[in-house]
Amino acid sequence: MQIGMIGLGRMGASMVTRLLRGGHDCVVHDQEPEGMARLAALGAMSAASLQQFVGRLQTPRAVWLMVPAAAGDAVLEQLTPLLQPGDIVIDGGNSHYHDDLRRAAALAKSNIAHVDVGTSGGVAGLDCGYCLMIGGGKDIVQHLAPVFATLAPGAGTAATTPGRHAGGSSADQGWLHCGPHGAGHFVKMVHNGIEYGVMAAYAEGMNILHHANVGLRDHAIDAETTPLREPAHYQYELDLPEIAEVWRRGSVIGSWLLDLTAAALAADPALDGYEGRISDSGEGRWTVQAAIDEAVPAPVLSAALYARFSSRGEADFANRVQSAMRHEFGGHVEEPAPTPGSGT
Amino acid sequence: MQIGMIGLGRMGASMVTRLLRGGHDCVVHDQEPEGMARLAALGAMSAASLQQFVGRLQTPRAVWLMVPAAAGDAVLEQLTPLLQPGDIVIDGGNSHYHDDLRRAAALAKSNIAHVDVGTSGGVAGLDCGYCLMIGGGKDIVQHLAPVFATLAPGAGTAATTPGRHAGGSSADQGWLHCGPHGAGHFVKMVHNGIEYGVMAAYAEGMNILHHANVGLRDHAIDAETTPLREPAHYQYELDLPEIAEVWRRGSVIGSWLLDLTAAALAADPALDGYEGRISDSGEGRWTVQAAIDEAVPAPVLSAALYARFSSRGEADFANRVQSAMRHEFGGHVEEPAPTPGSGT
Amino acid sequence: MQIGMIGLGRMGASMVTRLLRGGHDCVVHDQEPEGMARLAALGAMSAASLQQFVGRLQTPRAVWLMVPAAAGDAVLEQLTPLLQPGDIVIDGGNSHYHDDLRRAAALAKSNIAHVDVGTSGGVAGLDCGYCLMIGGGKDIVQHLAPVFATLAPGAGTAATTPGRHAGGSSADQGWLHCGPHGAGHFVKMVHNGIEYGVMAAYAEGMNILHHANVGLRDHAIDAETTPLREPAHYQYELDLPEIAEVWRRGSVIGSWLLDLTAAALAADPALDGYEGRISDSGEGRWTVQAAIDEAVPAPVLSAALYARFSSRGEADFANRVQSAMRHEFGGHVEEPAPTPGSGT
Amino acid sequence: MQIGMIGLGRMGASMVTRLLRGGHDCVVHDQEPEGMARLAALGAMSAASLQQFVGRLQTPRAVWLMVPAAAGDAVLEQLTPLLQPGDIVIDGGNSHYHDDLRRAAALAKSNIAHVDVGTSGGVAGLDCGYCLMIGGGKDIVQHLAPVFATLAPGAGTAATTPGRHAGGSSADQGWLHCGPHGAGHFVKMVHNGIEYGVMAAYAEGMNILHHANVGLRDHAIDAETTPLREPAHYQYELDLPEIAEVWRRGSVIGSWLLDLTAAALAADPALDGYEGRISDSGEGRWTVQAAIDEAVPAPVLSAALYARFSSRGEADFANRVQSAMRHEFGGHVEEPAPTPGSGT
Repeated sequence: MQIGMIGLGRMGASMVTRLLRGGHDCVVHDQEPEGMARLAALGAMSAASLQQFVGRLQTPRAVWLMVPAAAGDAVLEQLTPLLQPGDIVIDGGNSHYHDDLRRAAALAKSNIAHVDVGTSGGVAGLDCGYCLMIGGGKDIVQHLAPVFATLAPGAGTAATTPGRHAGGSSADQGWLHCGPHGAGHFVKMVHNGIEYGVMAAYAEGMNILHHANVGLRDHAIDAETTPLREPAHYQYELDLPEIAEVWRRGSVIGSWLLDLTAAALAADPALDGYEGRISDSGEGRWTVQAAIDEAVPAPVLSAALYARFSSRGEADFANRVQSAMRHEFGGHVEEPAPTPGSGT
Repeated sequence: MQIGMIGLGRMGASMVTRLLRGGHDCVVHDQEPEGMARLAALGAMSAASLQQFVGRLQTPRAVWLMVPAAAGDAVLEQLTPLLQPGDIVIDGGNSHYHDDLRRAAALAKSNIAHVDVGTSGGVAGLDCGYCLMIGGGKDIVQHLAPVFATLAPGAGTAATTPGRHAGGSSADQGWLHCGPHGAGHFVKMVHNGIEYGVMAAYAEGMNILHHANVGLRDHAIDAETTPLREPAHYQYELDLPEIAEVWRRGSVIGSWLLDLTAAALAADPALDGYEGRISDSGEGRWTVQAAIDEAVPAPVLSAALYARFSSRGEADFANRVQSAMRHEFGGHVEEPAPTPGSGT
Repeated sequence: MQIGMIGLGRMGASMVTRLLRGGHDCVVHDQEPEGMARLAALGAMSAASLQQFVGRLQTPRAVWLMVPAAAGDAVLEQLTPLLQPGDIVIDGGNSHYHDDLRRAAALAKSNIAHVDVGTSGGVAGLDCGYCLMIGGGKDIVQHLAPVFATLAPGAGTAATTPGRHAGGSSADQGWLHCGPHGAGHFVKMVHNGIEYGVMAAYAEGMNILHHANVGLRDHAIDAETTPLREPAHYQYELDLPEIAEVWRRGSVIGSWLLDLTAAALAADPALDGYEGRISDSGEGRWTVQAAIDEAVPAPVLSAALYARFSSRGEADFANRVQSAMRHEFGGHVEEPAPTPGSGT
Repeated sequence: MQIGMIGLGRMGASMVTRLLRGGHDCVVHDQEPEGMARLAALGAMSAASLQQFVGRLQTPRAVWLMVPAAAGDAVLEQLTPLLQPGDIVIDGGNSHYHDDLRRAAALAKSNIAHVDVGTSGGVAGLDCGYCLMIGGGKDIVQHLAPVFATLAPGAGTAATTPGRHAGGSSADQGWLHCGPHGAGHFVKMVHNGIEYGVMAAYAEGMNILHHANVGLRDHAIDAETTPLREPAHYQYELDLPEIAEVWRRGSVIGSWLLDLTAAALAADPALDGYEGRISDSGEGRWTVQAAIDEAVPAPVLSAALYARFSSRGEADFANRVQSAMRHEFGGHVEEPAPTPGSGT
């Protein structure tokens, strides 16, 4: 079927490519002409303006937005007046599901349908397919099924779960109508919250392995620093790339994120190419905030989120408060930072 | 090669079966005769006593112990006097690596070698192979390589990691000599610590999805309980078995533990068959304690561990302390527990 | 000066009493006549209806609301039409500061001022005074200063902080104009978030002391449960009421919350009178949600909040997910709950 | 009575001073002559060597050690051979209680008594007294009561706890015999674990207040960074020194640590004098490790401990693992660190 795509960044461009490969017609638009040119070469019809974009779509139009969450309202403000009753807006980006609820209600006044699609898969999605979590009206989602089926990985990409009768649901293909407006982004939000937790679990474990040699270092004896009680227990120089690799076969913690960790360690065993300032794109925050609204304990997901904040220096003032307290009650002076190059 | 196995529980019996299938000779011993009989039917040679067991092994003997961590010292106390210089004791159970260090040193006085093997794979290991993390002397580990190669999953069970030259290491087969005594159990310990974190990440996410309908419940208005500020945001009745299934294809959080979650939800969608008292077999505790010795922050792994403790009622006294404080400063009275059957 | 109070629960009634003692005129209203009668006996003027209440206040009226957060909008909806330009609404309850911002803007359209007052002190406030954190317009706050000065504890109730010149600020009296609308409840919100963290810190410590005797218990040896490695380290039967008491003198952790803990333990040494279902009245949640908006790590405050949720059974589904996973990968069966009466 | 003190650092010197003021005879020894000279001027008898020190003490000797935890065994190794049956060694430093158990057993073979004294109070203890938590034999502790009574703050320093009959216990004076060997340091260990949690609770709250102005900053719109959804909610420029001060009067979170925070903020409102590298002297670690041995959840105390580790850069490798994963799955590039001087 025909689909229009606005936003040709990393994700949008790859999704158009996969749709073209699947035999769909794609009309594309972006502020930057380069992305449009590349996709036009693959068979997409590009549109230099939103007006042209809308004009090239058959009604009922299916317009897929793949823009940064912060840009969503601005794009919709320009796009909506150009659309007609019966048209469909699909938000495939990382919008907050609260925005879906608000936007769906606003568009409904013009009889324009809104569908929210949480999309996971990253750069691998082009070839392996995207996991799609979808919210919106049942008929509209059904209408778009051919698009979802092409974008999704398909049934053969995972073994059938014992106890399920295969093919009984589109979930077996990798796409799912999760519920009404916002349900797609809600489920994607929680998905990313879990992702944060899983990533942090591996990262903490790797850090423990990385420091398994602390017994080999000298430690000063003073009243400020506790000595390592049993240096003999921490004499291991472990080979992290090999450990990540061995865990990929037969272990309970095998996963795609572990595969990626192994690949990253194979390329850069000490990860010297990274500074360790971990970004967060919102869903981890929203997941924890939703958990709190629901009164659901989420200590692991929260800890993972806070590790990202702290990695960017956001605990700094709190740390200074604590050092100041220690100075007040005990006259304690802070430990100096190690000289660069002296090792950690 | 020939291998002796002591301890024919779930794991020990499966490993012997896999070794027999791989063409190895197995001498087996357990306190319970049933396990021995089953394995004898598959071709193992059973031994009714430790004396008989040792007598049936060719020197240098390779004795694999697969007994509960708490039973290790008792078994070794009986076994060691029966062994000879050059023999090998392999501890494949969940021993603390501190015990490996102690036992290896003690056995070394009799010129008996100790090898520690952290084993992951669970009940699936029989058919899929076990991930083996190994500590001990290089020559001994090399000597036992045929056994490890049979127990491990083998190279084909995972795609080659980009950037690695395939086959350059036994890690690509699923077994790894991690380092000197204790290194195998150290790496397995951290593996399980990570496992706790990953499991808890999924579990918290599932709980948030499970409570996405809290806006549909009535809430009392009083000064003790905060009302849900936006009930309209929590009106979703989500289908967790379907969501777990869709995440198995194309999503960033695909993993074996997710596959298992999907299977558990397929079999029992509301998980009514579980009470939610989560056991812990030690490695999660030891991982966090090691992290602390190393001064490595492990908030995710710790939170996962504490969730297990709390699930078994271990926070009870702390909770009563807090309710008591609230009563003291505010005259607050505890919320009553919901009537059974009234739903949560 | 004259002040009107709506809401004569525990807090409202005590505050009126303190204001009367301080020589202020109080007009009071509540849905329940009993509270009004008690305060009338102390000198307050009661009003059976909101109309009567408003009629008995001199303009510009100063109306203090002390109602549950969830009831705030309903009361304001009835009250506002009865007020006149120049009147002042003071919200002294536990409102979310977002509501302050919204309400202040709405009232401003009618030239009615809004002041938000976060109030701490609990049942002790009647005699000891309340700590008041105030948001709103500077002139209005200044106009109400006599009321705040009476409600607050006063300068003599704490030693002068070294380095401050005493009396330079109302903070030295126990009340503070924190900033514009919402600032009072924002600061009070964070105050309560801290309170949750401090309470949980004591509670966890007390629980560790309470279990210092675990080495005296028998432990089964099986593969599901890790044995205590060093029972000799946990042979202490500690006297918690005495320990709380000794910490009150000279220790770094002396605090009012510790005083209350000591009092609770003096009254009920094993805290048998509590079930341990800890309520939360909202501010702890909002604090963490604000921290996340700000990208500020708040692991301690979050952990304290989640302990409350878990104490009320809200981790239940997550726990069952984890037990289900363990069953899937390892065939593990849950630990049974201890027989009631068998001790913990 | 007569008491010998080894170790005249900040704590040891102050305690001798307080003992001298209380009329006790003190014999003192330290590696550094300056400390001895200062105390000699106050009336202590100094001893240039351990031999001289022991010689100047009347039997049964009472030798108080106030040395860094890491130096304890070395001092005891030299001291013990000089002592006689009936002598008493008091460890008032921050020893691990496991060491108390080991040392007490070793000394008992020579009929030398060991007493462990956890000491809280910091630099204020000289004038205000120390909170003493004591482990050891009942008779010996009773024998030393005059010393403990002098060092402790005394009954008048806190209001009598409601429900206690005042004076019924030495806890009302600020010292307590907690139990057998190690009990003193065990209770002190948990005390410090609580201290970590309480400090971190204030620090996190202060950090949230500090960032209440994030809505005033510009934020870039891109797919890597989530924008602040409601900048209008974070427009507060809060005065932290004033807020800390107001909380000292009447609020539920009044405490000594808050007093110290107020003092630190009065002296350095932005805490620019601190880098925020928080030391830890061991007890926080041991508290969490003990909690884990006991299967007691300690999420707050752990989070506080990990904040200290992270403040010293110990999460660095874990952070790089996460950034590397993000790069692998999404092609995400790390956020650059802000230019120094650009503010946070």
